[in-house]
Amino acid sequence: MRPTSILYSLLFLLTNLGAVNSHAQNADPLPSWRAGPAKTAIIEFVTRVSSPASGNFVPPRERIASFDNDGTLWSEQPMYFQLFFAIDRVKALAPQHPEWSSQEPFASLLKGDLKAALAGGEHAILEIVMATHTGMTTDEFEDIVNAWIATATHPQTGRLFTDMVFQPMLELLAYLRANEFKTYIVSGGGIEFMRPWVEKVYGVPPEQVIGSSVKTSYEIAEGKPVLRRQATIDFINDKAGKPVGIQTRIGRRPLAAFGNSDGDLQMLEWTMSGAGPRFALYIHHTDAEREWAYDKSSSVGRLDKGLDAAREGGWTVVDMARDWSQIYPASAR
Amino acid sequence: MRPTSILYSLLFLLTNLGAVNSHAQNADPLPSWRAGPAKTAIIEFVTRVSSPASGNFVPPRERIASFDNDGTLWSEQPMYFQLFFAIDRVKALAPQHPEWSSQEPFASLLKGDLKAALAGGEHAILEIVMATHTGMTTDEFEDIVNAWIATATHPQTGRLFTDMVFQPMLELLAYLRANEFKTYIVSGGGIEFMRPWVEKVYGVPPEQVIGSSVKTSYEIAEGKPVLRRQATIDFINDKAGKPVGIQTRIGRRPLAAFGNSDGDLQMLEWTMSGAGPRFALYIHHTDAEREWAYDKSSSVGRLDKGLDAAREGGWTVVDMARDWSQIYPASAR
Repeated sequence: MRPTSILYSLLFLLTNLGAVNSHAQNADPLPSWRAGPAKTAIIEFVTRVSSPASGNFVPPRERIASFDNDGTLWSEQPMYFQLFFAIDRVKALAPQHPEWSSQEPFASLLKGDLKAALAGGEHAILEIVMATHTGMTTDEFEDIVNAWIATATHPQTGRLFTDMVFQPMLELLAYLRANEFKTYIVSGGGIEFMRPWVEKVYGVPPEQVIGSSVKTSYEIAEGKPVLRRQATIDFINDKAGKPVGIQTRIGRRPLAAFGNSDGDLQMLEWTMSGAGPRFALYIHHTDAEREWAYDKSSSVGRLDKGLDAAREGGWTVVDMARDWSQIYPASAR
Repeated sequence: MRPTSILYSLLFLLTNLGAVNSHAQNADPLPSWRAGPAKTAIIEFVTRVSSPASGNFVPPRERIASFDNDGTLWSEQPMYFQLFFAIDRVKALAPQHPEWSSQEPFASLLKGDLKAALAGGEHAILEIVMATHTGMTTDEFEDIVNAWIATATHPQTGRLFTDMVFQPMLELLAYLRANEFKTYIVSGGGIEFMRPWVEKVYGVPPEQVIGSSVKTSYEIAEGKPVLRRQATIDFINDKAGKPVGIQTRIGRRPLAAFGNSDGDLQMLEWTMSGAGPRFALYIHHTDAEREWAYDKSSSVGRLDKGLDAAREGGWTVVDMARDWSQIYPASAR
């Protein structure tokens, strides 16, 4: 076959594939999103930056989308799911720590009194996290997370935690990737707590996860190099830390950012202050029936200043009860 | 056109493209590499992990290749090129710092006595770097680097610094990417010093650059969010820091790693200690005529323990004088 014949075949094929593709594009890319301003704004923005003729075209390499995780990609009530993990680890490790029976916050936790255990606030949580998330190698921690996430269930819904991800957001992630966006998770949660499962669940590879971290040290253990997790905070990827984390890890400002709480406000501000077309979206948890309803006065995922900023800035706000026809994946148990 | 017709067209086309492609594969992917053990080892490894039938196939998402920069992708003599940048910045900023005329290391530097300026060792270098790399916003720093890299030339070769990249390594980067490797820079140099130009020069996007960094803080300046570079070290991505940086940013162990000094030893060890097929390569600077010749006793890019480890581990060692038919790109001025 001569090169010109190949060229003609290619042109013919592309023309016909084009027809198939345009049919596929007419199918709704966001079936769990009800018609309304949020859905319209998303599709309008993605179409605009992906269309060479729009006047707002952005080359694919600059199409960065950043997503908060807790409350944005999966639920976060009655507490961050990573805290369920930490508590389960305290219980599993208790036999090796007899001193915990008389030492707070562990003593209350082991007696099942979560409220008393967390009465110490952030300091108590930090103690629980450090006792359960450090000391082991990165490989060992990955195994621990994998074992937990495969079986642990939410106390109220009885579902696997990974079945409490938001179906509309799975569709949004896929829609953005189909339009050559690179999707990142930018979460206050632990980076190594997310990496083992987010590729399977969200399609986001480990190198596109940004999160909070502890320091690790490189050691030779029994002749083999390991990275050991140290009981020292390295980076807190929350609030003003989110733009910092984005700059350090990505080095480009996102084109679009998605969050649900005041912890995401600076990420959204940073995104919107870039030149050219930008998109910011807040998810407002308004669905007490199918999920949870909370905002200004919630201790988890508080959305207060962010809601004001969204109103002032004309950002997109999802009203979960109104805008989402489905919350969790139908395939979930 | 019915779907079956499209399918036949596609099959026909793929068959013929296959012929074209196999012709392309027969062309030498590494023309500046002379036939020899290093070139053979590279091609053998890449072919093995990319061939589903080899028994050592690795899925594309796990094909991570990490490259040191100074001395591995471009030259580093008589001192790291970033230091030339820092010195040029001291000269440019001197009018705003009259106190520097009597304050070391700036005073000696401004008199042109580099040796005296650097007599203070690491501390002197740190002072020079902090005085020239911090205080501004990340956007401002990017502009400063872009202006410098576009015009600054090496005092001995008279070339632009970006024309002192290694042609054989440009070919290697392209060859790996053609085989679905994701190529990362993992350098002791400043991450924000590299990002502005490495995409154009090496084809590596900013999100695939790992380097040393200073802390940045998120601020609102004149109503606009900015990230300001602080005079505090955040992370030193050198020696045992390299595996730490790789885990933090990528979260996967590289399949292949490339370096030239003892500063890369832990990255190569970490890479080789993973399960399955792995590849480590050291560049040995042996070409005093076309580049520089140095190893065990060089203060810049010392290669001492690394050379022993490579011998013991059976790693690939490039003898620059013997293995590379060309050092710098022919298109360079």
